[in-house]
Amino acid sequence: MHDPSLVLYTDSSPNGFKATIALEEMGLPYRLEHVRIEHGEHLQPGFLALNPAGRIPVLVDHAANIVLFESAAILLYLAQLSGQLLDPAPQPRWAAITWLMYHSASMGPLLGQRVHFECFEATPNPAALKRYRSLTEGTFSVLDRQLATQPWLAGERYSIADIATFAWLHIAALVGFDFSPHRHLTRWYRQVEQRPAVQRGIRLPAPATGP
Amino acid sequence: MHDPSLVLYTDSSPNGFKATIALEEMGLPYRLEHVRIEHGEHLQPGFLALNPAGRIPVLVDHAANIVLFESAAILLYLAQLSGQLLDPAPQPRWAAITWLMYHSASMGPLLGQRVHFECFEATPNPAALKRYRSLTEGTFSVLDRQLATQPWLAGERYSIADIATFAWLHIAALVGFDFSPHRHLTRWYRQVEQRPAVQRGIRLPAPATGP
Ligand SMILES: N[C@@H](CCC(=O)N[C@@H](CS)C(=O)NCC(=O)O)C(=O)O
Ligand SMILES: N[C@@H](CCC(=O)N[C@@H](CS)C(=O)NCC(=O)O)C(=O)O
Repeated sequence: MHDPSLVLYTDSSPNGFKATIALEEMGLPYRLEHVRIEHGEHLQPGFLALNPAGRIPVLVDHAANIVLFESAAILLYLAQLSGQLLDPAPQPRWAAITWLMYHSASMGPLLGQRVHFECFEATPNPAALKRYRSLTEGTFSVLDRQLATQPWLAGERYSIADIATFAWLHIAALVGFDFSPHRHLTRWYRQVEQRPAVQRGIRLPAPATGP
Repeated sequence: MHDPSLVLYTDSSPNGFKATIALEEMGLPYRLEHVRIEHGEHLQPGFLALNPAGRIPVLVDHAANIVLFESAAILLYLAQLSGQLLDPAPQPRWAAITWLMYHSASMGPLLGQRVHFECFEATPNPAALKRYRSLTEGTFSVLDRQLATQPWLAGERYSIADIATFAWLHIAALVGFDFSPHRHLTRWYRQVEQRPAVQRGIRLPAPATGP
């Protein structure tokens, strides 16, 4: 048995789950390296040589001699490598890329700020909390409207845009953000959650816990 | 003279400049639609039908019947359409996508939060200010190290990653964020700034002013 070409460096966290879910969905052989953020392993020189920003996930494709970081870049790469979860037809393809970017640049970073102020700030900061609750609610509404008329974010087919958005929402749900009033978003969330590959992905390298 | 296939809906703002700079660099024919955020034009039904999130930039390609939002999606699309500013060779190509995503998901959103707390919050919020100053400084250091050993973010060639990162840093510079201690980043900033297409792009649809 030889070593797989793909190695994923990750921890149990929203951006990490995007990569583990995608790899499980696509059935690509890979090796997992658990980088324990709570032990500071993401700041060790060996890891910083892979990602100078010191963040997980990182994907190395040894066969192609390519090192990638940023979860959205990893999803795009895996979709190209596998030919899966990113429709080749221009319209659904660019819809998926648009919604992947909406998640990565607009929704995910705001959820990250909200989690910080809800769970990790020693001194409560009501103004910041109010800001990030309102901004993340806005993103839930946008997704809810998108999912009111079609099964998946990019249209008729499940794609890497759904994976990215789900992975972060899974953590939002775990820390108690309530998006149940958004019923189309909730319907979609349950459908993604039931997929066997998703169930495996959110347990790798270990299941996430609340803060 | 027939109408160009590409129509860009934008305002003078960091995410908008990514698209105008790219279009100017690539020499693609396009029509500009000025969406005045200060007049609430981004919240009109006609615009929300293009981008349900109510944000600029939006690109419509009438020939392909494709509507895109999110500046990073637009940059990827324009690179594919023009065959420019995204190296086809796998290594530099995925390096450019990685750094484009680093900008879009990690750096840009933090700069956005810093601009908000520095310039637009009625009541000063010292804890939030401290947080976003420190986080954006961190991103400047990451870029500075990357640019210490190579001319452009993805290596030997100027790419859409440089355009995205520059467009936001241009606004950071305008509102007075000082990144001059990062000398490789500053060297790179000056080089991008001197490009004629960049000079045109940051004046479309009108030059940006400070807050
Ligand atoms: N935009 C990046 C964000 C990556 C990120 O922030 N990862 C977190 C875990 S979800 C991390 O490594 N945190 C380490 C730290 O905060 O120092 C992506 O999508 O990959
Ligand atoms: N992640 C998006 C962000 C787009 C965005 O926030 N655009 C701003 C202008 S730079 C906007 O439209 N703001 C309108 C508003 O804040 O309501 C992108 O990269 O395109």
